[in-house]
Amino acid sequence: MTPDLAWLRAPVAAPDPAAATAALARQASLTKPLGSLGRLESAAIQLAALQGAERPSLDRVHICVFAGDHGVAGEGVSVFPQAVTGQMVANFAAGGAAICVLAREIGATLEVVDLGTAAGPVATPRVRHVGLGPGTANLALGPAMTADQLAMGLEEGRAAVRRARAVGADLFIAGDMGIANTTAASALACALLGRQAVELAGPGTGLAAAGVVHKAAVIGRALALHANGLADPLEALRRLGGFEVAAIAGTYVACAQLGLPALVDGFVAGVAALCAARLSPAVADWLLFAHRSAEPGHALVLAALGAEPLLSLDMRLGEGSGAAVAVPVLRLACALHAGMATFAEAGVCGAGPA
Amino acid sequence: MTPDLAWLRAPVAAPDPAAATAALARQASLTKPLGSLGRLESAAIQLAALQGAERPSLDRVHICVFAGDHGVAGEGVSVFPQAVTGQMVANFAAGGAAICVLAREIGATLEVVDLGTAAGPVATPRVRHVGLGPGTANLALGPAMTADQLAMGLEEGRAAVRRARAVGADLFIAGDMGIANTTAASALACALLGRQAVELAGPGTGLAAAGVVHKAAVIGRALALHANGLADPLEALRRLGGFEVAAIAGTYVACAQLGLPALVDGFVAGVAALCAARLSPAVADWLLFAHRSAEPGHALVLAALGAEPLLSLDMRLGEGSGAAVAVPVLRLACALHAGMATFAEAGVCGAGPA
Repeated sequence: MTPDLAWLRAPVAAPDPAAATAALARQASLTKPLGSLGRLESAAIQLAALQGAERPSLDRVHICVFAGDHGVAGEGVSVFPQAVTGQMVANFAAGGAAICVLAREIGATLEVVDLGTAAGPVATPRVRHVGLGPGTANLALGPAMTADQLAMGLEEGRAAVRRARAVGADLFIAGDMGIANTTAASALACALLGRQAVELAGPGTGLAAAGVVHKAAVIGRALALHANGLADPLEALRRLGGFEVAAIAGTYVACAQLGLPALVDGFVAGVAALCAARLSPAVADWLLFAHRSAEPGHALVLAALGAEPLLSLDMRLGEGSGAAVAVPVLRLACALHAGMATFAEAGVCGAGPA
Repeated sequence: MTPDLAWLRAPVAAPDPAAATAALARQASLTKPLGSLGRLESAAIQLAALQGAERPSLDRVHICVFAGDHGVAGEGVSVFPQAVTGQMVANFAAGGAAICVLAREIGATLEVVDLGTAAGPVATPRVRHVGLGPGTANLALGPAMTADQLAMGLEEGRAAVRRARAVGADLFIAGDMGIANTTAASALACALLGRQAVELAGPGTGLAAAGVVHKAAVIGRALALHANGLADPLEALRRLGGFEVAAIAGTYVACAQLGLPALVDGFVAGVAALCAARLSPAVADWLLFAHRSAEPGHALVLAALGAEPLLSLDMRLGEGSGAAVAVPVLRLACALHAGMATFAEAGVCGAGPA
């Protein structure tokens, strides 16, 4: 039985304007020129609104990495063989991947969800296995997912957010792993943005120029094949997305419904965020954007979301890694907001007329 | 007796090319697409070269904030009254300023050096007092500093780095505090870069447009007054700089001589770095650049140094605050470099031909 998708259109939580107003007033009282902490000030105020607290905090960050394989890998769109998806799931379980190191360093809880890889399940209790199949179908030849796979992928995202909420998370990060997933994400972004393949296709994990041209051609073929099925964002996601793209889109919708701020990683997560915002526009209120990916298509996705990420470090790894790197910056924003002395407390004169 | 300035031209330590090569090879072996960690990879490799270790670390970060008053404040170039410099020294001592919060959060040691303020010394053992005078002279009417004040300011920078080295610091951050110090720094940058006042003058702590025009006029007058004394960077520093600008320039020269990496903060620190690099070009090898300030003149200073800062958060506070915010990012770069599994360790396939 296909899971019900009606939950995607359920109401989204409302940020707290009173907390935002209180946070803004507090920022103006702290011993610094107003605005001189730049993005750290606006981030603290945004988090105040989302957490409903004048002084927000990020004590319990939860990261969930979703892995899935992609049939379009058969088109030769990645420099890595498809086996790497399953191998990286094992690497996540063993603690050796970038996101594992980052999660340990920032004190975040890390969960790995294997939605379906060509290699099959890794035998470890440290990975949650969800058998949606050995990977998506090749989106250049037909729809990537069945209606069931799409619904179950989205539902897995919601379930991950519920688990995060249950352990008291105050910030949610979704990560992606899947060989060829920038091809799927680029194709989906083209559909959602009405763009051509050449405008979105990029090197992904490291294609040279000729590889990018081939990748754009594959995406272009897929866009032509599915041309009559891309107007609805959910159907576009089914035809062009992937298991992990669906799950991540589901996390953002669920975060917004449950009132849990989500910190969006790079390109693949960004396309999932765009898809979620097309399904339910108010979802965007609950998204913070961590970093600007080196993947060139990310700029168009961010512009469509009106997003200005905190960091721009030329990262292009996925896994939630860019979001994890932004966490200490957001924590410092919260610490400054909560811990600095006010002009009155410190006996410091304020600014005169400019 | 004027302190000897010959130390400024003493040889600079050499980064370790073998450590850099080893770090580069290690990056290529880690379970991620090569280059996918972007600036985190290059930062780890740079730190490896500077620390002479394949796997660098930033366990002991030392921050020294230098405060000093500026005679040019009398020209009405800041929205804050001059009394704020001394009040902020007290706020540093009491732990209420932004840099105090940041130092606590990142576990850095913090030292405050009051080089001379109009308000006179704050009675606290938590501040090191160096009586160079109640502030510099008004640089729009004559040289900001005497030869003695310049030499003692530079020497205080060196002394701070020696203290940092003595406590085992592996990264040094200099911070600045001084009402009107963006006027001094902008004037000095104009002299060093051969630029006009209008190209460098900015809002500082929050001038409106008319205030920036006035500030540029004051700087323009100073540049005309000192026109025949700006060819030598040391003499330009004496005429247009400030106590804390001199001290910070001294820290960078000393860091390079002692082989201690320095993380450069924003605009005022950046101008001090430019001055240090003009005094001794190899100093630049030991500088990492933390953030791009919202102060518009910073871009020209960074370009002259060939510097690409890690962060761009619209900060413009000084105190070393932008550098402190970059520390966790650099620490994550080190942790990823040291802690990720290699392809061989994890049994993950590498990339094929692109």
